[in-house]
Amino acid sequence: MSQTTSFTEIAEQNKVNAADRPQLRVTILGGGSFGTAMANLSTRNGCNTIMWIRDQATAKQIQTSRINERYLPDFKLEDQLLITSDLDFAVKDRDIILVAIPSHAFRSVIQKIAPMISGQAVISLTKGIEKDSFCFMSEIIREELPEVPYGVLSGPNLAKEIIEGMPAGTVIASHSEQVRLAVQQALHSALFRVFASDDVHGVELGGALKNIYAIAMGMAAAFNVGENGRSMLITRALAEMSRFAVKQGANPLTFLGLSGVGDLFATCNSPLSRNYRVGYSLGLGKTLDEAVAELGQTAEGINTILQVRHKAAQLDVYMPITNALYEVIFEHAPPLNIALSLMKNGHRSDVEFVLPHQEMS
Amino acid sequence: MSQTTSFTEIAEQNKVNAADRPQLRVTILGGGSFGTAMANLSTRNGCNTIMWIRDQATAKQIQTSRINERYLPDFKLEDQLLITSDLDFAVKDRDIILVAIPSHAFRSVIQKIAPMISGQAVISLTKGIEKDSFCFMSEIIREELPEVPYGVLSGPNLAKEIIEGMPAGTVIASHSEQVRLAVQQALHSALFRVFASDDVHGVELGGALKNIYAIAMGMAAAFNVGENGRSMLITRALAEMSRFAVKQGANPLTFLGLSGVGDLFATCNSPLSRNYRVGYSLGLGKTLDEAVAELGQTAEGINTILQVRHKAAQLDVYMPITNALYEVIFEHAPPLNIALSLMKNGHRSDVEFVLPHQEMS
Repeated sequence: MSQTTSFTEIAEQNKVNAADRPQLRVTILGGGSFGTAMANLSTRNGCNTIMWIRDQATAKQIQTSRINERYLPDFKLEDQLLITSDLDFAVKDRDIILVAIPSHAFRSVIQKIAPMISGQAVISLTKGIEKDSFCFMSEIIREELPEVPYGVLSGPNLAKEIIEGMPAGTVIASHSEQVRLAVQQALHSALFRVFASDDVHGVELGGALKNIYAIAMGMAAAFNVGENGRSMLITRALAEMSRFAVKQGANPLTFLGLSGVGDLFATCNSPLSRNYRVGYSLGLGKTLDEAVAELGQTAEGINTILQVRHKAAQLDVYMPITNALYEVIFEHAPPLNIALSLMKNGHRSDVEFVLPHQEMS
Repeated sequence: MSQTTSFTEIAEQNKVNAADRPQLRVTILGGGSFGTAMANLSTRNGCNTIMWIRDQATAKQIQTSRINERYLPDFKLEDQLLITSDLDFAVKDRDIILVAIPSHAFRSVIQKIAPMISGQAVISLTKGIEKDSFCFMSEIIREELPEVPYGVLSGPNLAKEIIEGMPAGTVIASHSEQVRLAVQQALHSALFRVFASDDVHGVELGGALKNIYAIAMGMAAAFNVGENGRSMLITRALAEMSRFAVKQGANPLTFLGLSGVGDLFATCNSPLSRNYRVGYSLGLGKTLDEAVAELGQTAEGINTILQVRHKAAQLDVYMPITNALYEVIFEHAPPLNIALSLMKNGHRSDVEFVLPHQEMS
């Protein structure tokens, strides 16, 4: 019995009985690997599911071949999943709209669907921060669709593993219980567990900020800091993230969950990720330009550092790791500053919210 | 410039000026690798430091050669560190006693020093649970030395890395601020950061319970669950640990710190640890006897599972991972039950204390 068979067996044993529930009409905007994985799950869960892809030729090709050649070339999609490039058709008369559009194009797509939205809930599947505005995806939804029930989905979710039927979990955060339940109905299954939270901003911050610490983890690897040092880095990163989030009204306990420590753990254990690799190059003493040239593309975390540092200064939040990274990348400080930034803040309380800080040595 | 040199340079830049502080008299009981590493740090910090080792010949040998052949054969100890097998001399007229004695011998040593204790603080450096009694080390101290100020030290602290001068952090937990400050004075340095907490039980539980989840992580590795699954496991483990701890009065936020998620992260990323290896063998379908025979010794986590399961039943705490491990190890359930235990509890709130549970499917 192969391992994959075993997981599949779990899925069979736990199969959702679609007949027990009213059929949900689910649309996924965006045909990247994660959007496609979610569209396929929703279809399997017995939902009437549409995936919208901007490019007409690509949509037609996937609709016919049942294969997303660019992102998931080895995987055949469920027969019932409908793929279209007709936005109006995809958005009107639906129950929930899951938006899996990259952060730089997120607002323009939300603006386009605004006239088509009546009672649909809109849920972001996108991690990241809008360039320049420092808007999170839920804020874009609120700004562009003020009356619409919304939510965000975030967690340690490598799409390739999900579509291969390996186990995973995620978090749906919304102030609306109806939205949480609808997303669970659409996506929750034996091998993809959807947990609920009402801390929208906390969940969203986890997904966006982790990219910063993946860079730091790559840099630490270049310095061979060892397991003790890696653990300290991930813990201080969690403290820094939650401090930043709490200042904005999030619940620190959210960071104990999948969208916080879970996503951070996965990211920091992925040495092949772009953020980690940029950090590693920087740790070897290369400049940002050299690191990015080597990688052949930029890393999301670089932009996140710039934005979070700016916002943290405004809010007066203490973020030594982010600041040290900024100084190394943009002010030519030695990479060892990262280690120093962890080391010099001793005698503080271990967890921010348990004991007040004691500034010493 | 080698990496090691760099860390050493940090240490030099941040060197504690011993002359500024009254000299602390510190004793470490036990000459294992962690006790030795702490004794060496305390000596470096300018404290008058004694390390007590039960065996007279070994004590003499280390005192003369300055090398702990059995545990840290490659490392020369500080000249000022005094090693003795005279317990009375080691314990009387001291400020703090750090106890680094294995859990099965911890109580007998505490009983022996009881008549020698006047004003000394007693701090446990030992992770684990006393067999049969389900006593943590701090409880043993409280039972045997009711009037004595006490604390526990716990964190992701591989002794070998610490003694080699690689960076690390730990947590001193005590209800007494004096104890916290004294331990920081003894051990805190540029490369070993000692953070403070007043959540003694939470800190101690993190160090003891992580062994359970190292077994689960090894088992998951045998099933090749992937990064999403590993992240879910570590997150659900944190939830389970904190649920158990909170029921006993601990602060859930402690688990965001070094002694919680930090230690769990280090443990779950150590595929060479005994717990992980036993779990891996069990995941391949071997029996506990076969797994232990292969390893050549038992794993602490096995005993911890038995005790925590028993205690959780008494306290009515929901611990699906621990229970599933018990069933696999002692009731011949298929190892896939671990995966099922993660998977079947969906629709619950992501983090226990944020949203109430919603039992569904």
